[in-house]
Amino acid sequence: MNPTKRLSYAVIGTGALGGLYGGLLARAGVDVHFLVRSDFEHIRNFGLRVDSPLGNFHLERVSCFSRPEDMPPVDVAVVAWKTTANGVLAETLRHVCRPHTCVLVLQNGLDVEEAAAACVGSNRVLGGCCFLCCNKLGPGHIHHLDYGRIAFGEYDDELAGYVSPRMLSIAADFQFAGIDAQPCQDLKTVRWSKLVWNIPFNGLSVVLDADTREIMLDPSSAALAHSLMVEVQTAAKHCGCTIQDRHLVKMLEDTRKMVPYDSSMRLDYRGKRPMEVEAIFGNPLRSAQAAGYRPEKIEMLYEQLCFLDRANRGGTHH
Amino acid sequence: MNPTKRLSYAVIGTGALGGLYGGLLARAGVDVHFLVRSDFEHIRNFGLRVDSPLGNFHLERVSCFSRPEDMPPVDVAVVAWKTTANGVLAETLRHVCRPHTCVLVLQNGLDVEEAAAACVGSNRVLGGCCFLCCNKLGPGHIHHLDYGRIAFGEYDDELAGYVSPRMLSIAADFQFAGIDAQPCQDLKTVRWSKLVWNIPFNGLSVVLDADTREIMLDPSSAALAHSLMVEVQTAAKHCGCTIQDRHLVKMLEDTRKMVPYDSSMRLDYRGKRPMEVEAIFGNPLRSAQAAGYRPEKIEMLYEQLCFLDRANRGGTHH
Repeated sequence: MNPTKRLSYAVIGTGALGGLYGGLLARAGVDVHFLVRSDFEHIRNFGLRVDSPLGNFHLERVSCFSRPEDMPPVDVAVVAWKTTANGVLAETLRHVCRPHTCVLVLQNGLDVEEAAAACVGSNRVLGGCCFLCCNKLGPGHIHHLDYGRIAFGEYDDELAGYVSPRMLSIAADFQFAGIDAQPCQDLKTVRWSKLVWNIPFNGLSVVLDADTREIMLDPSSAALAHSLMVEVQTAAKHCGCTIQDRHLVKMLEDTRKMVPYDSSMRLDYRGKRPMEVEAIFGNPLRSAQAAGYRPEKIEMLYEQLCFLDRANRGGTHH
Repeated sequence: MNPTKRLSYAVIGTGALGGLYGGLLARAGVDVHFLVRSDFEHIRNFGLRVDSPLGNFHLERVSCFSRPEDMPPVDVAVVAWKTTANGVLAETLRHVCRPHTCVLVLQNGLDVEEAAAACVGSNRVLGGCCFLCCNKLGPGHIHHLDYGRIAFGEYDDELAGYVSPRMLSIAADFQFAGIDAQPCQDLKTVRWSKLVWNIPFNGLSVVLDADTREIMLDPSSAALAHSLMVEVQTAAKHCGCTIQDRHLVKMLEDTRKMVPYDSSMRLDYRGKRPMEVEAIFGNPLRSAQAAGYRPEKIEMLYEQLCFLDRANRGGTHH
């Protein structure tokens, strides 16, 4: 990959996240192709609409596909759908990837790169966390509310610790498109840092049926959110990742100032779609336990969400 | 009090619990007077109806009062309303109690005798736990589903450790009426034993919006119920009360075999009434913490319930 030349991209999954970042890249003239599932007809006919603090825009025509086998070869495949769709990821990547293609996994949670690594090899996988508030309002219509930074890095342990040339190329393309993409040397710590927010606020928003503002305004739920953050910090420490206290303070402050926000997990729960319980809760919990630490409250939240996820999708006991 | 003679009783609060036990005493011919709040007109006109495995019955006329100042003096005042009604307990007891009257507090939770003790002195207070499934179906209509044992004992530390003559008299009256009333030497351990059930099943039924059967059938929620029981057992131990492992096993087995049951706390939540969060969760939590133990999952459940209780009653942030 030549850092002076723009790369080509396949966006795997055109929901809130894929629609926003892919849309920004396309608006900037970068070569982007979208794999679209539920909204394919709409996006093919009407394009992609993005409401964003970065400027509203409407792409009347985008290169979109309903089947991965129809897509052109690209330099970077961006995995932008939820981990709950990963059942078809291997087959999808087989169609989209050429030998030189690398895969950038922009999913929430821990160890979410494993599925892509099993398919193309871990040395061709990058992972990233998106710090953003973004929802899909309707077919092909994305609403970007706030934030938007992507922190990303190499997944392979051998490649961790430094910023690779392909990371610089991707960062250059994204920044050219107005996306705050930050190359990071330590993807694991980035993932744990994101979990500091996702574990309390995704989890409690579902269990307490509350948005971020309601959780932060009540002293009991705000205290619980903080306790959960401390457990994530302690779990990260046991897994070799240091998260500073000031990161917790900033996450709480940012959330307090945030517009009332429904986490993606709450939206999935309300839409009776599967929640990303294993990626965001099960994997970090098992990593902590394997490292000799038992985060009691994360465990409890995980068990509550497992129950609610099954009940929500018509568990046989309901 | 003379153990060969029946005592007279005032039932303070004629809901599911007061209606059942008071009704059974009245059916047996024991002298019982009911303080009735919401259902007064109905019970005065139509009496009290009890559906029970002990036999259905209908008392067409019962001695009922809407104001404590109208009630006759009695030997035993039975506090049968929820702790959330205790704001008016002191004033009520002042009217109902004579110098010889003792108070039997049949409320859920820990340290719930404190309000009565502050009023009449702790040496005139007994406490008891009711192991029963019982709901109010409508005004003056009680549905007793299963179980029914009362384990009770002296509240005062000086009197703890032995079975007092007044305990024998009360047990004799209750058993005469068909109630399985067991005098116990150690009220504190009885209370913690009851919390082994109440903390997981009252709490999770509200947070997970589930009945006992749904909680026990799902592996995640069943595991969580068990973890919470172990925390209650550990908290009890720190407070000087030993609860055997076999009690936990029995509670889980009984709950598994139980007819699907909505805990009183879930009914309160659904009815948008205040929940007994402090009596059942806050007090045991603070006792454990004061004894040097931090039960993480009980703390989390307490914070979740505080949030839901406020939100349910129109917290300002909703």
